[in-house]
Amino acid sequence: MRFSISNAEYERRIEHVRKVLTKRKLDALYLTNGTSMFYLTGYSFISTERPAALVVPVDGKISFMGPLLEKDHVPLETRFIEDVRTYVDYPGEKHPIDHFAEFLKDMGLTKKRVGTDNKDGATGMWGYKGPSLTKKLREAEFVDATDIVPEMRLAKSEEEIALMKESAKWANLATTLLQEYSEEGSWDVDVALAATHQTCTAMKKTLGVDYEPKRSIIPVSAGFRGQIGEMSAIPHSIATTHMIKHGDIIIGEVGVDIGGYSCELERTMIVGEPTAKQKRYFNAMVKAQEAAFEAFKPSAKCSDVDKATINVFKKAGLAHLVKHHTGHGLGLEGHEPPWLDIGNHEPLRAGMIVSCEPGIYEVGFAGFRHSDTVLITEDGAELLTYYPRNIESLII
Amino acid sequence: MRFSISNAEYERRIEHVRKVLTKRKLDALYLTNGTSMFYLTGYSFISTERPAALVVPVDGKISFMGPLLEKDHVPLETRFIEDVRTYVDYPGEKHPIDHFAEFLKDMGLTKKRVGTDNKDGATGMWGYKGPSLTKKLREAEFVDATDIVPEMRLAKSEEEIALMKESAKWANLATTLLQEYSEEGSWDVDVALAATHQTCTAMKKTLGVDYEPKRSIIPVSAGFRGQIGEMSAIPHSIATTHMIKHGDIIIGEVGVDIGGYSCELERTMIVGEPTAKQKRYFNAMVKAQEAAFEAFKPSAKCSDVDKATINVFKKAGLAHLVKHHTGHGLGLEGHEPPWLDIGNHEPLRAGMIVSCEPGIYEVGFAGFRHSDTVLITEDGAELLTYYPRNIESLII
Repeated sequence: MRFSISNAEYERRIEHVRKVLTKRKLDALYLTNGTSMFYLTGYSFISTERPAALVVPVDGKISFMGPLLEKDHVPLETRFIEDVRTYVDYPGEKHPIDHFAEFLKDMGLTKKRVGTDNKDGATGMWGYKGPSLTKKLREAEFVDATDIVPEMRLAKSEEEIALMKESAKWANLATTLLQEYSEEGSWDVDVALAATHQTCTAMKKTLGVDYEPKRSIIPVSAGFRGQIGEMSAIPHSIATTHMIKHGDIIIGEVGVDIGGYSCELERTMIVGEPTAKQKRYFNAMVKAQEAAFEAFKPSAKCSDVDKATINVFKKAGLAHLVKHHTGHGLGLEGHEPPWLDIGNHEPLRAGMIVSCEPGIYEVGFAGFRHSDTVLITEDGAELLTYYPRNIESLII
Repeated sequence: MRFSISNAEYERRIEHVRKVLTKRKLDALYLTNGTSMFYLTGYSFISTERPAALVVPVDGKISFMGPLLEKDHVPLETRFIEDVRTYVDYPGEKHPIDHFAEFLKDMGLTKKRVGTDNKDGATGMWGYKGPSLTKKLREAEFVDATDIVPEMRLAKSEEEIALMKESAKWANLATTLLQEYSEEGSWDVDVALAATHQTCTAMKKTLGVDYEPKRSIIPVSAGFRGQIGEMSAIPHSIATTHMIKHGDIIIGEVGVDIGGYSCELERTMIVGEPTAKQKRYFNAMVKAQEAAFEAFKPSAKCSDVDKATINVFKKAGLAHLVKHHTGHGLGLEGHEPPWLDIGNHEPLRAGMIVSCEPGIYEVGFAGFRHSDTVLITEDGAELLTYYPRNIESLII
């Protein structure tokens, strides 16, 4: 069984980029975004202070330029990068950007038009310092082309959808285990690691010897991220000293790397019988999510979906507790376009995959948010995640 | 027991920033780098497409500007941000950068000189699009001040050193468990998660109710990252389908979040009795590391340390297998300055903490690299990590 994008699909993607380049009269595309590089070639690497770039010329071999330590890594991950050019390390006796300028000269790109997602030539992480590539190659014309790859990523292909569906299966197992292992007195990190570990080994034994995560070191990310009790009211909390106790609302979150793609599955759970107030908030949140499910259809605007959930919260008298929009695109990054946001009037298109996660949060009380992964189809939407959403199923 | 930087130290840091601003005739510092924000305030958040910034004025309250979902989070994490200004979400009905421009006007910074680490005003992750802040506030003068906080982070304080030492203790436990749990036929991810889980729960039970990671969701990161057998020759591999087998070289790596700081501890292990070639490569690597330990002293140049390890490999006839420099600074990020690189002639200073990890890598055979965390002291260096380095101790 294959757990990654096929070579045929990578070929189609590269072909498409070349068509866009030709249309825009560009001679090459210079990318520093690691996700874009992975999308076009299947090659994934650890981004650091060391500059790295992919060059896709309209004709000729695709090149990777980066640190020496990636040289032997590239051919193991992709057959689409046929030319690898390296510098020893950063900062080096000669700056990597000076090497890159020479590599580009050597590729004959000096007096050409080069589309790029980064005119500095490097992402600039972790204390990196360096001159701008465009200043080193003044005869080349650099043109902003940040949009090319993200635009391609907006609607997912059949292969991408299949990977996301596989991801959703294992997210279901991990969520089941998060719920099963959570009990009064337990530390959320302990529960998280037990569920993560169990899901990873089950996946490996089930998917077999060929399975490996493509863009994560640990294939499964499952846990609560500190969203325990009152801290569940902080949607982007990182950790908490609170142990899980009776009466707590806890919010579990799961992602699973299948071929570099991941779904998102989140569930609000209650430790013990819910109070009337917990039920009211929980059920309003479920109702808002259902309103969003109804609003999903091709040609509906992204803002329509956000409006639908806000309306439910307004009717419930809880709109003042909304702290974020309804959702975001999913695929290769934690969040990606399209944004299900009241300010985004872009139409939904078949093949888009988005999170659906309207939430409400009351400081000193709790937060309430489920997140499901939704595929927009020709005539509506399909939920890729299927863990139960109703309150009865989520009582611990 | 305290597992984070004291308020007194945050006060000193903020005071120092204000002195530098005054010296440079700047009225405020505008930062988008999350690590810099954490360094000055202790507030850590999840960076996403949603713009976020910290504004430190020479006089007056420190402000955080960001998405609504961080509003209630800020006061839980820090007392140094006394002013929180938010927009609902990105992209929103009004763009966050337009909100930021208004916030800055409201703070009286319109016609002022503002130091910044980012003239765009936002980090631009995950499909973010937006206008540049400097173009929205043309009357303000934005001046590059990217260096201010990274410069402060270069030499560590007593408190930072104490956190790094605590981190090194737990890294030792995790490495012990990685070695203990590794056996023929096991999957490196399985071993990684067993060691991670065990170390996390031991830490929490030992350090007590007040312990929580500050900048990571899971406090411990322990594993092999695919560096198993032949794949150990790929220093930045991500994953592998190879199971651990007899005769393999495997490289374990550990980091542990104590107050947001982490040491680095890596060990090359051998599954079964080493061959003559494995011994030769392994011992050359250990010798290179020892040469670096000797070269560490204040006023020695960073490049001297890299030269010392390269010389050992040259003498051993293995210099062609070197794929990266000797090390990098450690503290708040995976890598940070100073770079122990042949091209970096910056002097070492007491208080700097660096990784020491000379390595050699032969494709089709294996890689050999230990990494230790080293504190530069007034008269030499102190190793903060102390797991055995000799081959006899690392045979599984």
